[in-house]
Amino acid sequence: MSAQRFHVTYHVTPTDSRSIEDHAMDICIEETVEIPKAAVSKAHWDAGIVGKTESIRQLQGSPPCYELVISYRVDITSNTIPNLMNVLFGNISMLRGIRLVDVEFTKEQLKVFGGPRFGIEGIRKILDVADRPLAMTALKPLGLSSQELGKLAGSFARGGLDLIKDDHGLINQHFHPFKERVPRIMDAIRDAEAKTGKRSLYLPMLAGRFDDVEEQASFAKDQGCYGLLVPPALIGPDTGFYLARKYDLAVAAHPTFIGTNFNDPRHGITIAMLLGKLMRLFGADISIFPNFGGRFGFTQQECLDLCNALRQPMGDLKTTFPAPAGGMSVERVGEMVKTYGTDTMLLIGGALLLHPSGPEQGARAFATSLEKASTSGKQS
Amino acid sequence: MSAQRFHVTYHVTPTDSRSIEDHAMDICIEETVEIPKAAVSKAHWDAGIVGKTESIRQLQGSPPCYELVISYRVDITSNTIPNLMNVLFGNISMLRGIRLVDVEFTKEQLKVFGGPRFGIEGIRKILDVADRPLAMTALKPLGLSSQELGKLAGSFARGGLDLIKDDHGLINQHFHPFKERVPRIMDAIRDAEAKTGKRSLYLPMLAGRFDDVEEQASFAKDQGCYGLLVPPALIGPDTGFYLARKYDLAVAAHPTFIGTNFNDPRHGITIAMLLGKLMRLFGADISIFPNFGGRFGFTQQECLDLCNALRQPMGDLKTTFPAPAGGMSVERVGEMVKTYGTDTMLLIGGALLLHPSGPEQGARAFATSLEKASTSGKQS
Repeated sequence: MSAQRFHVTYHVTPTDSRSIEDHAMDICIEETVEIPKAAVSKAHWDAGIVGKTESIRQLQGSPPCYELVISYRVDITSNTIPNLMNVLFGNISMLRGIRLVDVEFTKEQLKVFGGPRFGIEGIRKILDVADRPLAMTALKPLGLSSQELGKLAGSFARGGLDLIKDDHGLINQHFHPFKERVPRIMDAIRDAEAKTGKRSLYLPMLAGRFDDVEEQASFAKDQGCYGLLVPPALIGPDTGFYLARKYDLAVAAHPTFIGTNFNDPRHGITIAMLLGKLMRLFGADISIFPNFGGRFGFTQQECLDLCNALRQPMGDLKTTFPAPAGGMSVERVGEMVKTYGTDTMLLIGGALLLHPSGPEQGARAFATSLEKASTSGKQS
Repeated sequence: MSAQRFHVTYHVTPTDSRSIEDHAMDICIEETVEIPKAAVSKAHWDAGIVGKTESIRQLQGSPPCYELVISYRVDITSNTIPNLMNVLFGNISMLRGIRLVDVEFTKEQLKVFGGPRFGIEGIRKILDVADRPLAMTALKPLGLSSQELGKLAGSFARGGLDLIKDDHGLINQHFHPFKERVPRIMDAIRDAEAKTGKRSLYLPMLAGRFDDVEEQASFAKDQGCYGLLVPPALIGPDTGFYLARKYDLAVAAHPTFIGTNFNDPRHGITIAMLLGKLMRLFGADISIFPNFGGRFGFTQQECLDLCNALRQPMGDLKTTFPAPAGGMSVERVGEMVKTYGTDTMLLIGGALLLHPSGPEQGARAFATSLEKASTSGKQS
């Protein structure tokens, strides 16, 4: 019986005049055996250890670009995130003109990596909100005291927001050490919940040295948090997903320091793959991404492709909340709901601080406009 | 007394018509407080929590590009690698037209991060080789048995190579599990050493899930390894450096999956910064990089800039071996020694497998041509 294989689609814009077949063979070798073709043994070819070009198709447009499908043996990735990333886009990350656009995983891979623990339904169940987009905000700026951050969290919770996360810049600085701010913020949110009867979830930022992060995850769980803000590029692509699984916490994946992977249209990994399909496979319940028309230069189509990757059927995997962010404002809520639909988590951060009556009113304006946009969407 | 600051140089190619001062302010805010400028309090401005533009200078060439120096408070990075990376190039990784080209660290930062444990001198001392470039190779391909890898390692060691590393594709696959191959390879190398009297160091690849890597590092130490092959992008930028320090092992840093950071000339992080200054600061004793004229598209100047970053004075930090690699062959040894000088570690991998008399002769040809090139360099 031959070994199971999975299929990877790359868009390749050749950087020299060699044939596209040669470029395809480069990838097949570079991502697996990494030795000259002449040094590959017959046994290795027969066993299919080398990647295999399954199809080549020229795409429309100029310069010439080709869609290649390359299959790899499943077992060369040993079903771990670091090893999988190494096969998908390891050394070829240092080449030019290669874009990873899709992966068709086998049933076994979907099962082993497992996807979201909670997913859209699970998060909705915890919050008891069935039928509208969710509202999320971020605690910032960096440099406030833990007490001030707690106060801010209380305001946001009283204002009616569903999720409150740390800004990804809040790490373990002396202004607001993790073990000081997490209890303060949880206390403030519990106070607010006692008053309003509405639940708000707090997701602290998981980041630090190798020997810090597990203690942070465990501490967050002990403090009653339901999830974590996880920056895969800062702490390693496996770390946060592994720890969230171990401590039964939800994951909101954050794209800080990951951007060079997807901002060259001819090289890297599409935003739909990296922040979409892969984050979902690895276990993101929420995937935060830069919305079109904000501070970051992504197109509406790229954002919609990403949402599809998070919400369309993918074996038995749960779906992931897309969380568009990055310079969003309350004025754009209607447009965002129309664009992204109900199963979306809108993330508005700094703009809430600008509300003339303060952050609680800012949060309330956000929650109210979301409620309105969501109702009007249903009537239309 | 005002807080200590460190200085970061970016090259910015504006992507819209706003002033360069506005673009500079974008970075100052995005990498720190990440809220609208109008929402930053006087206290925050006064405390210098926001990044500060120190200078702006237009560079020659078209499109217009500017050199910005921005200073940040040292304490907002909490002196950890994940936090530092987040401040240097976190969310701005998702923008376009920003290139991180240099960082001037404070004495305190250099001391806290610490740099290489062994460095060029330390590695030379272990090997007792004072005055020539070192020869390194890689065990591959993926998919051999542990026994076959051991045999190959023995051949390379008998051939006289100084360092033998795992290929970065050897992770923990069932063909050659870490705990099976490391003892096999170490045994084979010890046998060779007993015959030749010449020491060879073996560096196994550190990669796996969060809960695997510490056991791997500890196991490697117990087996008598002197160092590890560390892929920062696969396991997290801190992980391998932390573990190597804890278990007193040398680090050879590998750039797999890190390439999109440096292959866009207008955006990202220069190879000299990322594989040079930063890897050295974090603790790389050896930094592997794609040599010019091989499979990867870097220029000779980029490679030399990287070498400078690894070997020039940097406070009290030890120096790091540059290890040019990527499609190198024995025929290029003379040219590489001439280009890079004595304090270099040449890495030739797959090409040694093509030697008509087998890998031991391939290794010997490499070692001999290195000896020759090195002697002729001294006479000239």
